[in-house]
Amino acid sequence: MHIVVSNPNRVPECEALIASVAVPAAAPHTVEVLSPQWGPRELTGQRETLLSAIGVLDALTTRAATADAIVLAGFGEPGSEAIREALDAPVVDITEAGPMAAMLLGRRYAVVTSTEAAVPVVEDRLHTLGLDTRCSGVLAVGRSVPELMGDHDGAVAVISEYAKRAVTDLRAEVIVLGCGGMSGLDREVAASVGVPVVDPLRAAVGQALVLAAAGWRTSRALAYSAAGQRHISGLPLPS
Amino acid sequence: MHIVVSNPNRVPECEALIASVAVPAAAPHTVEVLSPQWGPRELTGQRETLLSAIGVLDALTTRAATADAIVLAGFGEPGSEAIREALDAPVVDITEAGPMAAMLLGRRYAVVTSTEAAVPVVEDRLHTLGLDTRCSGVLAVGRSVPELMGDHDGAVAVISEYAKRAVTDLRAEVIVLGCGGMSGLDREVAASVGVPVVDPLRAAVGQALVLAAAGWRTSRALAYSAAGQRHISGLPLPS
Amino acid sequence: MHIVVSNPNRVPECEALIASVAVPAAAPHTVEVLSPQWGPRELTGQRETLLSAIGVLDALTTRAATADAIVLAGFGEPGSEAIREALDAPVVDITEAGPMAAMLLGRRYAVVTSTEAAVPVVEDRLHTLGLDTRCSGVLAVGRSVPELMGDHDGAVAVISEYAKRAVTDLRAEVIVLGCGGMSGLDREVAASVGVPVVDPLRAAVGQALVLAAAGWRTSRALAYSAAGQRHISGLPLPS
Amino acid sequence: MHIVVSNPNRVPECEALIASVAVPAAAPHTVEVLSPQWGPRELTGQRETLLSAIGVLDALTTRAATADAIVLAGFGEPGSEAIREALDAPVVDITEAGPMAAMLLGRRYAVVTSTEAAVPVVEDRLHTLGLDTRCSGVLAVGRSVPELMGDHDGAVAVISEYAKRAVTDLRAEVIVLGCGGMSGLDREVAASVGVPVVDPLRAAVGQALVLAAAGWRTSRALAYSAAGQRHISGLPLPS
Amino acid sequence: MHIVVSNPNRVPECEALIASVAVPAAAPHTVEVLSPQWGPRELTGQRETLLSAIGVLDALTTRAATADAIVLAGFGEPGSEAIREALDAPVVDITEAGPMAAMLLGRRYAVVTSTEAAVPVVEDRLHTLGLDTRCSGVLAVGRSVPELMGDHDGAVAVISEYAKRAVTDLRAEVIVLGCGGMSGLDREVAASVGVPVVDPLRAAVGQALVLAAAGWRTSRALAYSAAGQRHISGLPLPS
Amino acid sequence: MHIVVSNPNRVPECEALIASVAVPAAAPHTVEVLSPQWGPRELTGQRETLLSAIGVLDALTTRAATADAIVLAGFGEPGSEAIREALDAPVVDITEAGPMAAMLLGRRYAVVTSTEAAVPVVEDRLHTLGLDTRCSGVLAVGRSVPELMGDHDGAVAVISEYAKRAVTDLRAEVIVLGCGGMSGLDREVAASVGVPVVDPLRAAVGQALVLAAAGWRTSRALAYSAAGQRHISGLPLPS
Repeated sequence: MHIVVSNPNRVPECEALIASVAVPAAAPHTVEVLSPQWGPRELTGQRETLLSAIGVLDALTTRAATADAIVLAGFGEPGSEAIREALDAPVVDITEAGPMAAMLLGRRYAVVTSTEAAVPVVEDRLHTLGLDTRCSGVLAVGRSVPELMGDHDGAVAVISEYAKRAVTDLRAEVIVLGCGGMSGLDREVAASVGVPVVDPLRAAVGQALVLAAAGWRTSRALAYSAAGQRHISGLPLPS
Repeated sequence: MHIVVSNPNRVPECEALIASVAVPAAAPHTVEVLSPQWGPRELTGQRETLLSAIGVLDALTTRAATADAIVLAGFGEPGSEAIREALDAPVVDITEAGPMAAMLLGRRYAVVTSTEAAVPVVEDRLHTLGLDTRCSGVLAVGRSVPELMGDHDGAVAVISEYAKRAVTDLRAEVIVLGCGGMSGLDREVAASVGVPVVDPLRAAVGQALVLAAAGWRTSRALAYSAAGQRHISGLPLPS
Repeated sequence: MHIVVSNPNRVPECEALIASVAVPAAAPHTVEVLSPQWGPRELTGQRETLLSAIGVLDALTTRAATADAIVLAGFGEPGSEAIREALDAPVVDITEAGPMAAMLLGRRYAVVTSTEAAVPVVEDRLHTLGLDTRCSGVLAVGRSVPELMGDHDGAVAVISEYAKRAVTDLRAEVIVLGCGGMSGLDREVAASVGVPVVDPLRAAVGQALVLAAAGWRTSRALAYSAAGQRHISGLPLPS
Repeated sequence: MHIVVSNPNRVPECEALIASVAVPAAAPHTVEVLSPQWGPRELTGQRETLLSAIGVLDALTTRAATADAIVLAGFGEPGSEAIREALDAPVVDITEAGPMAAMLLGRRYAVVTSTEAAVPVVEDRLHTLGLDTRCSGVLAVGRSVPELMGDHDGAVAVISEYAKRAVTDLRAEVIVLGCGGMSGLDREVAASVGVPVVDPLRAAVGQALVLAAAGWRTSRALAYSAAGQRHISGLPLPS
Repeated sequence: MHIVVSNPNRVPECEALIASVAVPAAAPHTVEVLSPQWGPRELTGQRETLLSAIGVLDALTTRAATADAIVLAGFGEPGSEAIREALDAPVVDITEAGPMAAMLLGRRYAVVTSTEAAVPVVEDRLHTLGLDTRCSGVLAVGRSVPELMGDHDGAVAVISEYAKRAVTDLRAEVIVLGCGGMSGLDREVAASVGVPVVDPLRAAVGQALVLAAAGWRTSRALAYSAAGQRHISGLPLPS
Repeated sequence: MHIVVSNPNRVPECEALIASVAVPAAAPHTVEVLSPQWGPRELTGQRETLLSAIGVLDALTTRAATADAIVLAGFGEPGSEAIREALDAPVVDITEAGPMAAMLLGRRYAVVTSTEAAVPVVEDRLHTLGLDTRCSGVLAVGRSVPELMGDHDGAVAVISEYAKRAVTDLRAEVIVLGCGGMSGLDREVAASVGVPVVDPLRAAVGQALVLAAAGWRTSRALAYSAAGQRHISGLPLPS
């Protein structure tokens, strides 16, 4: 079994952090993490987010052709439709797997994410995916991915603060960590907040294993019907 | 790891069928299937469905206290709220896990279920669970659980017929088998219909393993806050 | 004309309170109030609520067979679907009749209920019933039924406090008393709050009389089609 | 007790038909039916409907000042907000009372109305009133009020035909007669169709009696706060 | 090209204010502003609003028969359906054009209107028009049209205060001025608030020119099908 | 005034067709049409659509920096969020302007588009944009852009056939041409179908002129706050 997890940015520390959570979530030698070969270093707005989606699509179509399942590790990232169309293997987006796990653990969940600019992106994705009906809100802690990653204790503290606010003010029963840079902090935050905290990457790797084991693949009816061609063309890529 | 799967009815053949799908979906000696000790033999309407929920609650609280995760194998069954409140282990309802897996494989899914009387029950559950936004419809094949189980080829044929109708008329991209008596028929139906067919029991056992492995448990905030007491009381049960 | 009102708990004082409101809402000798013969004494969470529904179903199928209409006096209680399926007489749930009356008196209503654990139950029922679109919120006063019943003046004060909050903060125009233990307090609360306060039991008895007089009975199409059998079976009831 | 029922048009036969249903729905000498003194004779589109609302407002403010409750007998008619603002007595619109009664009798209802031009008007009112979530559709029989009233047997036949279509094609479980000119046909249609058929006027008179008996009046918070002035001014009315 | 803009009230200063914004929004001699010849002087509640709609309908059918397009300058006013049915020229309601322009400039918009009594009216119109999904709220500054018009600096200050509140508390990204008496204040408010402020009248005149230039006219299918007759009848108008 | 219209594909005939509609919709020398310098020639699925969005973003950020307004001429295309973030000028997407104009002309509109693969893309965009509440459906004629452009009479015939189906089966009152390759066919289709047919490009150019003339620019609050940087970086573009 071979699961490929795509990191949406090009911050090596973030790829390593993602690997530290994703690799142990499956049997040894199952999970591989990769990052785009080009595209924005960090994702701080609509353009970087969109451009990253193309970089991830390129990386997966060129380097994950034999994967049994794909995990998209960017919370709220667009582009999963194109990736589902392009690849044969089933695709699990952490934006889906995190809320799904949360909905099994409580009636309302909230997402805690990095910066204010990410909030509308996340809200729009949840709305498009039909996963917003049990979401009581998306809150931003006001720190970028590098800021979160560079200050572990501070990250736990500020995420816990906003998670508590989500429980108290938004009546959330479960928290979803809505940013790759928060990977692996779920247990510390949960200990502080007192409600379940879902690391969506952990949920997504598990779900990917389930889909692959069941032999389920992306439907080729309607939304993802234009399959077949493997490599994206038309980009002015150095060949 | 110990996963307990509850069959909602008291048809021994149905329990065996559920076991034939659920047991191989995990490592050996992981999955146990149980049925209520009392309650309706079959579930053909609102009363039987409600009464079955109490029987399942009783069975799980008395016989699954040490489980690491619970799977509820009745599609559209009420009562998961009470079971989540009563038990410490995480609970995965096939009514949730099936549509969730389907939503990862296509943009719209349809449910194919047994009889017309089940359709409103399933629709109401999906609506309450917030999983109806990407559901394009619930269709009944017009056969009861025993009828489906007693005629394997006929069951595959009629489910395939309605699944094709869902693809053509409702624009579904994925089919969810919405009845325990259809367990294990996913591959034959998929071969006939040409879109992914999700056996929700398979999805649920997988998801239960994921939740248990991650150490996530039901939230004790708000909806499921009245925990603690283990055995249901007040029922005129022979003690 | 014979209207049977079912009290969902087994607190005799609550049955008496319900009778004090329901009996005068119809002509003499019209209204009878009954309580389950078994089931939880009080309803404080998902399990007790579900179990109470079975007790009410048992009580009504065995003791209300000749009623012209049924009133369910538990606000937010599940189980009305099974009761509608089981009985010939029309069924009016106070969870429906209260909001319906409120919607005739103002554009947005709020529900004031007993404890926090009841809020998700009530919200889910209103959502399932399609009565949430004009509901601006459900607030809990933080007191159990016995606490409310044991302190009349304190109950009026705390309900009025939350009702005012609903008007100010949630922009509610009408208040619905969302708990059987608040029966009969509508006029005192209304005097204090200054907007209409609906006792849903009063509304439900009236609506039941209207349905019975019109000769309307529960539809036997689809949702409540599995009628016929009168007594619930399968419960380990002492026969 | 004095209930005033307003007929929205100026067809004397329609006023008489409404009286034949509304008067027997309450104790003798309780119900009075009135029609606008000016305005369109019939209501066949948006303008006549809007203009009728003003005529009804004028009639009620000048002639129903002492009523204990008001019933608006035009299905889908606009203007109830202005009438609620203008009058002290509680107001029951048949567009509300019909669907509310239907929702107590089945899970989904459909409206059968007169002409195609009425369908968008009715749909918009149900949407604004938040009563569309359990409505499975609005169908027009393609006959005007005079055509319906002038051919009793033909009216029963065509309404029954569309009601059956609503049950079969739209999965409706209850039918609401959505036109004043269909008043009193509920029983004959029900006998033919086999599901409950609600005459909304019957439901509304009953509901009006309930509200009046309970002493509930329109809220003066927000939506209907601009009360006080009784007679409409500014119209170029002959004084 | 001839655009007729209807002022909903009979305050001459308001008509002049509307003209001061609408006339320069098109080529010279293109825009004409008119007011109803009868009806309420100001619009402070449901009745005046409804009555004004008839006055506007009368004014437009009698005085705008040759217009190339119509602009309705009352924010939240009912009656556009009847006007669309009655007139051949395309009709642009500022309640539509303002939110539409705002939705092109940001993801969520808020409406700032005059008095609390206007809020439910505006909310209901946006809901009926399907323009509420991206509306984050409707706030009232608590001043009537004459109060706003009589104190220019105070109006700018109080509108700016509520607009800032909408940005901060409701997360609005664009503000729509939801009251004719606020016409022309958009630039001063925008300078103070820092997000785009849409004067819906400006947007509506522009949109009306676009529709007229394209030759598009109101559809005669279903909702506005009852066209043909030009003058409203049945009103006790002095002829 | 300078309006830049972006053609999403790299089919020169399509750019010319777009110019033939867009240029005459404004004063001479106002409208310029451009196409991406790289990216897919045609857009037939999720990948091409996503990739085209990047090509359009690149083209606009490098070649439209001085435009007064931008029009995006790809119906259902993603990427408008990134373009709004990147550019100072207001942006009008034909996916927005077409439905908005349609909503001013009738109560329900339908979209007629090219191929089945485009339907889910268009539906998702309308849902995300909050413009789906009055959309009665999206129908595909089953022809690609080149097929439509290469057979004018056949295109008019097949679009008219589906437009009529939308009116009859989906109760649409207005048709929106949901594909750039249908540009300029609105009048011929309207003549055949009998309801208004909106060419969204015509609507968008007009709306762009309105926004530019009013001086309104994209909000920099929340969703489009990450402005400033002009050229996209990170793409392996030949510099």
